[in-house]
Amino acid sequence: MAASSLHCIQSLRFSSRSCAFFPHIGFRGDDDNKRKNSRLILASVKKSDKDLSVESKVETLLDSVKWDDKGLAVAIAQNIDTGAILMQGFVNRDALATTISSRKATFYSRSRSTLWIKGETSNNFINVHDIFLDCDRDSIIYLGKPDGPTCHTGSETCYYTSVTDFLENKQVEGNRLASTTLYSLESTISQRKAELVVPEDGKPSWTKRLLLDRNLLCSKIREEADELCRTIEENEHSARTASEMGDVLYHTMVLLALKDVKIEDVLDVLRRRFSQSGIEEKKSRGQQN
Amino acid sequence: MAASSLHCIQSLRFSSRSCAFFPHIGFRGDDDNKRKNSRLILASVKKSDKDLSVESKVETLLDSVKWDDKGLAVAIAQNIDTGAILMQGFVNRDALATTISSRKATFYSRSRSTLWIKGETSNNFINVHDIFLDCDRDSIIYLGKPDGPTCHTGSETCYYTSVTDFLENKQVEGNRLASTTLYSLESTISQRKAELVVPEDGKPSWTKRLLLDRNLLCSKIREEADELCRTIEENEHSARTASEMGDVLYHTMVLLALKDVKIEDVLDVLRRRFSQSGIEEKKSRGQQN
Repeated sequence: MAASSLHCIQSLRFSSRSCAFFPHIGFRGDDDNKRKNSRLILASVKKSDKDLSVESKVETLLDSVKWDDKGLAVAIAQNIDTGAILMQGFVNRDALATTISSRKATFYSRSRSTLWIKGETSNNFINVHDIFLDCDRDSIIYLGKPDGPTCHTGSETCYYTSVTDFLENKQVEGNRLASTTLYSLESTISQRKAELVVPEDGKPSWTKRLLLDRNLLCSKIREEADELCRTIEENEHSARTASEMGDVLYHTMVLLALKDVKIEDVLDVLRRRFSQSGIEEKKSRGQQN
Repeated sequence: MAASSLHCIQSLRFSSRSCAFFPHIGFRGDDDNKRKNSRLILASVKKSDKDLSVESKVETLLDSVKWDDKGLAVAIAQNIDTGAILMQGFVNRDALATTISSRKATFYSRSRSTLWIKGETSNNFINVHDIFLDCDRDSIIYLGKPDGPTCHTGSETCYYTSVTDFLENKQVEGNRLASTTLYSLESTISQRKAELVVPEDGKPSWTKRLLLDRNLLCSKIREEADELCRTIEENEHSARTASEMGDVLYHTMVLLALKDVKIEDVLDVLRRRFSQSGIEEKKSRGQQN
């Protein structure tokens, strides 16, 4: 899948500040001459047929992007495991070319009129596994894995200001990130774990009871897994399967919280396990049997 | 959580084409007069103190956005359950105000110089549960649930052109969406299900074996759930927990594929279950006990 499918790009040489594949990158000059320059330089370097073929394809791809009147397109960096939108910037032709060859998310700074590789000062690079263009070819997703927090504030992502919290005067402890369902649930379970005090009336919430009683938690996980299986063994309706799977996910996530394991860690395991050749058959069979 | 936290916004009146909260929307006019107009109109309408307070807060919020030289900011629509980036457009002040009051993702068309509500012709609205601003306040996430495919091509999202597939001459059947780990795995399992023919050498892949043998699948799910529990009962390392949880997820996803249940359906169940008041304690306890 994505992680391994970049091998032809991986083979291109790259240094952190210049792009060997597009050596003109970093030189400011006449926009009209840019492509001409790059081709002249490319032509002067001895390359394998494979390199030339990839170069020509990258040029075709860059030509196909619908750059705006300033030569820019929108680029959105997304965490390949969690789906979190990390940040959004703009790219010009050179920034996208650099990202393709370096696999480090690279943008064009409109205020400084220069390329910038995310992480060049903080070391929090975003390692790009795949790049997607939208139907209009003027918007781009960098699907990648961040080395650390993406935002310059130290926040995991740049999107931590909720309009609804603001309109409702909600006092949120720390930042509330733009989280999708699984991660909102993970965050809520984590909060319950942090406030693990049994209330005076002696009726802790179900989540707290599970967090406080590992025997109860494990018996529930085994029970929910069994109930999920029975939806297929007893040919129950698919809505029942979705509901039972919800129970499995919720209870196993409480266990993950107790073990300080993030869903992201689990997805990282899955991606590595299955990224070599789609579903990694033999390895999986070797593990199971 | 997000779904229910918009009640103050829900209380605002809305019709599909105009915004009662910002009645000037839809009228083209002098940009400088826009806010003055909206305030005059707002002042002429009798409103409760609560309405006025929300109105004033929305104005403050809109004032805080860093609009570019054309009065625009980037808006990204993201599926609240799956995290898929559905589309990206631009918003002006009116488009964001309309989204806040209507909870339908609304954009500003740069080519037609007009507001457009995503879904106004296709009925594939994006129902916005929350809105997030980034640290620079010039980029916005609409976190919502789409009514149907978002792309005008009928594709689930607009991002179906992979740069790596293009560079590697990969022939992809249909569109390959920009998918994060869980959904790449779901898609791969689904492909295995579609090609369920045992190869001539008699060695089907592990995934295919599970798909073909429900007894094997169910015994593996129960076994993996048990092994996950034992990582906490026997105090194993957290890396082991992540790995076992990966096994649980993978095997349960094979069951979901057999029952034609999408992970998105499961997340929808979880969001509805837990969105009323964080972790919905009593309901959950009622279900469990």
